[in-house]
Amino acid sequence: MKQIEGSICAPLGFKTAAVFCDIKKLGTGKGSEKGKKRDLALIVSEVPAVVAGMFTSNQVCAAPVRLSAARAARKSVRAIVVNSGNANACTGRQGMRDAERMTSVTAQSLSAVTGSPDKVTREDVLVCSTGRIGLLLPMKNVERGIRACTPLLGRSSRQARATAEAIMTSDTRRKEIAVEITMAGGTVRIGGICKGAGMIEPRMTQTIGGATGLHATMLAFITTDAAVESRFFRNALALAVRQSFNCITVDGDTSTNDSVIALANGLAGNRALSRTSPERMEFQNALNFVTLELAKMMVRDGEGVSRFVTVRLHGARNAGEAEAAARAIANSSLVKTSWCGGDPNWGRILCAAGYSRARIDEAIVDVGYSLPGQRKIAFGCRGGRPTQVSLATLARITSAPEFDLHVDLHLGSGEFVMYASDLTEDYVTFNKGDLTDPTSLGG
Amino acid sequence: MKQIEGSICAPLGFKTAAVFCDIKKLGTGKGSEKGKKRDLALIVSEVPAVVAGMFTSNQVCAAPVRLSAARAARKSVRAIVVNSGNANACTGRQGMRDAERMTSVTAQSLSAVTGSPDKVTREDVLVCSTGRIGLLLPMKNVERGIRACTPLLGRSSRQARATAEAIMTSDTRRKEIAVEITMAGGTVRIGGICKGAGMIEPRMTQTIGGATGLHATMLAFITTDAAVESRFFRNALALAVRQSFNCITVDGDTSTNDSVIALANGLAGNRALSRTSPERMEFQNALNFVTLELAKMMVRDGEGVSRFVTVRLHGARNAGEAEAAARAIANSSLVKTSWCGGDPNWGRILCAAGYSRARIDEAIVDVGYSLPGQRKIAFGCRGGRPTQVSLATLARITSAPEFDLHVDLHLGSGEFVMYASDLTEDYVTFNKGDLTDPTSLGG
Repeated sequence: MKQIEGSICAPLGFKTAAVFCDIKKLGTGKGSEKGKKRDLALIVSEVPAVVAGMFTSNQVCAAPVRLSAARAARKSVRAIVVNSGNANACTGRQGMRDAERMTSVTAQSLSAVTGSPDKVTREDVLVCSTGRIGLLLPMKNVERGIRACTPLLGRSSRQARATAEAIMTSDTRRKEIAVEITMAGGTVRIGGICKGAGMIEPRMTQTIGGATGLHATMLAFITTDAAVESRFFRNALALAVRQSFNCITVDGDTSTNDSVIALANGLAGNRALSRTSPERMEFQNALNFVTLELAKMMVRDGEGVSRFVTVRLHGARNAGEAEAAARAIANSSLVKTSWCGGDPNWGRILCAAGYSRARIDEAIVDVGYSLPGQRKIAFGCRGGRPTQVSLATLARITSAPEFDLHVDLHLGSGEFVMYASDLTEDYVTFNKGDLTDPTSLGG
Repeated sequence: MKQIEGSICAPLGFKTAAVFCDIKKLGTGKGSEKGKKRDLALIVSEVPAVVAGMFTSNQVCAAPVRLSAARAARKSVRAIVVNSGNANACTGRQGMRDAERMTSVTAQSLSAVTGSPDKVTREDVLVCSTGRIGLLLPMKNVERGIRACTPLLGRSSRQARATAEAIMTSDTRRKEIAVEITMAGGTVRIGGICKGAGMIEPRMTQTIGGATGLHATMLAFITTDAAVESRFFRNALALAVRQSFNCITVDGDTSTNDSVIALANGLAGNRALSRTSPERMEFQNALNFVTLELAKMMVRDGEGVSRFVTVRLHGARNAGEAEAAARAIANSSLVKTSWCGGDPNWGRILCAAGYSRARIDEAIVDVGYSLPGQRKIAFGCRGGRPTQVSLATLARITSAPEFDLHVDLHLGSGEFVMYASDLTEDYVTFNKGDLTDPTSLGG
């Protein structure tokens, strides 16, 4: 496996385009650069593609999530339509009609332009939205946007970049990746883009709602030209999401709109991958890499984030308890503010682990810090007690832009890794909004 | 019941005193006003007092918590010794020896000064600490402080105020209250003081550790001259804490040191209260009032807090789900930052309720706002959809220093009320510490 240039258009047979259609209804008078950020995009496979999707476990979930989760159960689809600026969440029946309409307009528009013999139906189209909650979509603008987008479809890196930008909300930079693997008699490529920034602690499942998810809108789109068997592909995406997007947190809020959609169109001409293929792990590793890199980009570009911390929880009684302790630490306001200050405050870390549902015995807990990629761990706490390591030594690590936190409960073999951020004044300033500017509120 | 002047010395037979003994080891050279804030206090009953205690459910709990929880199981005690500046948490066996030593020095010192025939033993003394985690107490200073404190014991309001100040850490003002009730053939008084500010989401139980508490150091001391039967008193305190301290949150972090200790010395001469007394509810109501008023003071004076929000969750399937939804809303970073900005962002509220373990059906949820004490609720969301009420109307309420949030899930009769705060830039600034000032770190 090697990393290559590009993203969703690196694999064969995928086209994309993005336009500005004023989904925030800023009006045309303004015309500022910011106001004209592209806000609607299409991602299209030239041939039917096997689909897999993972969606928010939040019981309050947006109309596009409900619709796409249903359509992701199909064997193959053709396209994804996505908008930023409005989440189409908490919009009732009209919201669902609007989501449906986005897919039917996309299908019509694609059928008209491509003029291909295999007509694209609305069932072939998935839809995602991100942005403000509780507002109806400006459907005139949306429909105009879709129709403007279709003739622009192409597979250049520039177009993929435009789509990566169109899905951004509070993100400050676009997030793209692509890899190539020679396997199973073909050259397979996997590409991906995502957006994140706020309302980020994804806990996605294959079925929407009802799950007891704790706490992002994050959207990720993965394309591959691999030939895959549907069931294998779904399972592979679930495994990949479990070790990537479902292991990150910015603010501990699980969004109403989190969605990861993956399309595999088979144009690489490899032997179709299934659960019995000898190459299955190679593909899985590549998919894991793509999703994990995208997930980390999301945390690094989280709202107000100034520091990226990898929480490595070891020695829990089991994996579930390891996850519970890691999430408690990674979401504690006091732990996160200490990270903001570069403060190696292991007392707050023990405190957070102690109120998690994980069993812990404070008399045997170790807490240490290391710089990424370095093996030497500086322990601030051993056996629940301060070590002789100086505050200055610890702070040299925790004041770096990225560091690893090691917590060992010494009770078993349960492990969990969580990718987390600090909590900064900038996060608060950004999210408190500005009552004098209604467009800053909500969402 | 009427509210009266004073606090812990309002009931008959309670004495207190507080001194500065430099527990933070700032040195004597500094001598600034701030450096000399009193940091050690004694609260003493002239006669043996029935004791009740509630302590943190955090599995990582400080030595003084372990010791006091054990001693609160006794029928009666005489005194509480408390220090601020150092939590004596994560301090191993030496921490436990130090906590023990604080009680034995207090017992010796009280026995020497009072010269009363009934000698005070160390088992008659409870101990509480609050402040930085992971540092051993400066026992020379502590012992000097206890010995300096004992001769100063008195029952003036000035002395009670000094103790209320001595227990403060990041609190900006002292928290005191006292009430008087004429009942059961006597005039009974209940007084209390507390401290809070950060690491505040108390979830206290009568047994320490092991409970699956989610997430303060808060300390509260309640005194009463009521004659009470021990079992009744413990139950009364548990009920009072459940509707007060256990219903507040500042930052969602349940501390290692949370403790509420109540002493009842019987000097009011009323007929002893028990579970069968006709006056039991009168006493319970008074105790509920005292604890709830103290709990609210704690939230209003929470670290960086600019807004006080009462979250009223109705219509959950049961009380447990109502609590889960209320806690998710009250601890959501995005909800709390919107409150900071005075933003009536009900979308974020639905999102938080949606990822709680409470069952919710977004199509029937109502979210509204009202000013405290006013009956008129302005609904931003009815049946999961925006109402016609303008953002300006909603914002007029949510930009007040205090408002009530009403969430009705319409699924059952489960209710829960949570007293919460916003999340501000000041909270982050305060808690991120300053690496150039080691005394600002930890704790």
